[in-house]
Amino acid sequence: MKSIPSTSYSVHFNEHCYKELNVYLEASNFSKIFILVDTNTHTHCLPKFLSNIDCDTAFEIIEMEAGEVHKTLETCYQIWKSLSDLDGDRKSLIINLGGGVVTDLGGFVASTFKRGVRFVNVPTSLLSMVDASVGGKTGVDLGTIKNQIGVINFSDMVLVDVSFLETLPAEEMRSGLAEMLKHGLIKDADYWNRLCNLKSLDYSELGGLIHESIIIKNEVVIRDPNEHGERKQLNFGHTLGHAIESYCLDNPAMQTLLHGEAIAAGMIMEGYLSVKTCGLPESALNEIKNTLKSIYGSVDFTENDKSSIIELLKYDKKNSHGQVKYALLESIGSCKIDILVDDNLVNEAFLFYAQ
Amino acid sequence: MKSIPSTSYSVHFNEHCYKELNVYLEASNFSKIFILVDTNTHTHCLPKFLSNIDCDTAFEIIEMEAGEVHKTLETCYQIWKSLSDLDGDRKSLIINLGGGVVTDLGGFVASTFKRGVRFVNVPTSLLSMVDASVGGKTGVDLGTIKNQIGVINFSDMVLVDVSFLETLPAEEMRSGLAEMLKHGLIKDADYWNRLCNLKSLDYSELGGLIHESIIIKNEVVIRDPNEHGERKQLNFGHTLGHAIESYCLDNPAMQTLLHGEAIAAGMIMEGYLSVKTCGLPESALNEIKNTLKSIYGSVDFTENDKSSIIELLKYDKKNSHGQVKYALLESIGSCKIDILVDDNLVNEAFLFYAQ
Repeated sequence: MKSIPSTSYSVHFNEHCYKELNVYLEASNFSKIFILVDTNTHTHCLPKFLSNIDCDTAFEIIEMEAGEVHKTLETCYQIWKSLSDLDGDRKSLIINLGGGVVTDLGGFVASTFKRGVRFVNVPTSLLSMVDASVGGKTGVDLGTIKNQIGVINFSDMVLVDVSFLETLPAEEMRSGLAEMLKHGLIKDADYWNRLCNLKSLDYSELGGLIHESIIIKNEVVIRDPNEHGERKQLNFGHTLGHAIESYCLDNPAMQTLLHGEAIAAGMIMEGYLSVKTCGLPESALNEIKNTLKSIYGSVDFTENDKSSIIELLKYDKKNSHGQVKYALLESIGSCKIDILVDDNLVNEAFLFYAQ
Repeated sequence: MKSIPSTSYSVHFNEHCYKELNVYLEASNFSKIFILVDTNTHTHCLPKFLSNIDCDTAFEIIEMEAGEVHKTLETCYQIWKSLSDLDGDRKSLIINLGGGVVTDLGGFVASTFKRGVRFVNVPTSLLSMVDASVGGKTGVDLGTIKNQIGVINFSDMVLVDVSFLETLPAEEMRSGLAEMLKHGLIKDADYWNRLCNLKSLDYSELGGLIHESIIIKNEVVIRDPNEHGERKQLNFGHTLGHAIESYCLDNPAMQTLLHGEAIAAGMIMEGYLSVKTCGLPESALNEIKNTLKSIYGSVDFTENDKSSIIELLKYDKKNSHGQVKYALLESIGSCKIDILVDDNLVNEAFLFYAQ
């Protein structure tokens, strides 16, 4: 698959990505290479990754615990300490080998260590391939508020080797698929239709679709890297989705939701808001709801859950002056931003979702 | 005094600075203003500052403990929590009212909260006026390693009201003077001479000299914001000075050194290295030593202290590939960068300092 050039870096694919990495390492004269892994990618991805690196520079492995609950400042602190203890300096390179937690957190750690060292993202989950590792957003959670602390800073390259998906659990594949579906919903009805007709989530058949999703996201990021306008479209489903995800993360009584599962619920609800405020046809909404529910099932919310989630909306990073702003659909493939929505409609969206 | 334009912001002075601030606040439509103070500036500076603000936007005061030992991630965490609890959003403004700890830490907090909100620096110590608040360096210490975590990011404006110096303790005035002396040593022999002949450190007489120091630093920062070259000159005295400061901070047996006191010791020692490697005349070195010792006295180091400090040099942010690089003087007013120095010479520099 062809490399995708972005703002200041490129996304490279499969076998070709290792050639690009080795050329880059050869040319860069790094003092040391630190590879950040989590407990899963240490076992399942690091051996293959290392077998493809051809370079004389010394390297060290730094391991963090796997999972969203470890996307914290405490984990950053441990990694900054390790980098210091292992003689990391400004000419060090950090390679983030993992899912969205590793690439988001590792990008933040790199961007702030000694006021910034260079880093490379090697996403190993579907979610991080099509979303987290492209676009320069780095960060960690603050308590239950997702990505509250971070910076926008671009990696030197992104390497997408879809064979890492071979060992990814099925629910993680579904989670990543939600972001791909979103790309179709906001930008490309034809792409959405092809994803809807997908027969399996086998990684070997997904390659071309992953490539398309990255192209869609990348084009938005290039036009609006700092999210002043168009990039907000990528938040479709995420305003309610993030609040739902935060709420479930913080409430042991709720089922554990993966990011994509929460975003799928958010997209159905925000689809409803789209009908009410942006003219999305009801038929399109039903298509969205049926497709997403057939893949992700349904989450049960009590009245109490609902009001707590609506309360959490105020922490959404897109908001200001106390107003919650949504990215909503005019049609499948077309999205508007900065839409204000009445609280009543949000209540109705929960009811529609539950039906 | 005339405003000084910088990369993307300006430095404004005295009464004029409040006019500029009020125009800026009026034009910016911030959702809320957070003023970060420490325990000292809350008492001594905030009342005057507030009395000069003319603006309808709601504001909140966030207070941190005063002192370098609080320049930590833990303090950042508390402030990020406060910003979240007080409904801070992306359209919030943070005003850092304090010395170097407040402006460095507050700049980092602002640069990373929700991936970055705007901020204004209002330095209240001599050190932060002539150094910390100009140039975009933000950060916090990691354990005893100074400024190990941070980003380069510029404030929207810097407001220098020298009347805040009225309540600054004499040793803090001396500490700030060290950076002004450094500006003379690396860039301007005439400015150095005038500082050497200074009869008192009364704030009302310092205004013009502060203005000159900011011009010197600002010109360097404009030419090399990311410290790839010329900006490293500003590290003269800081390679050994930072290591000495870190060591004293971590060792209760050592006297407490203010930043400028440590940098003064570092400048004498690095003056010695300058003679040995860059052709600084011995007469200039003696002038530097006599001037700095007459202001800052002398610190006693044991053999053990010395070897521990040399060990700490490896954490210096300017280093890479295990090599310590110095900014050293060719003459008073002229500085070279990236100089490698033999460990033996560093030992000799300690001996020269002790004489």
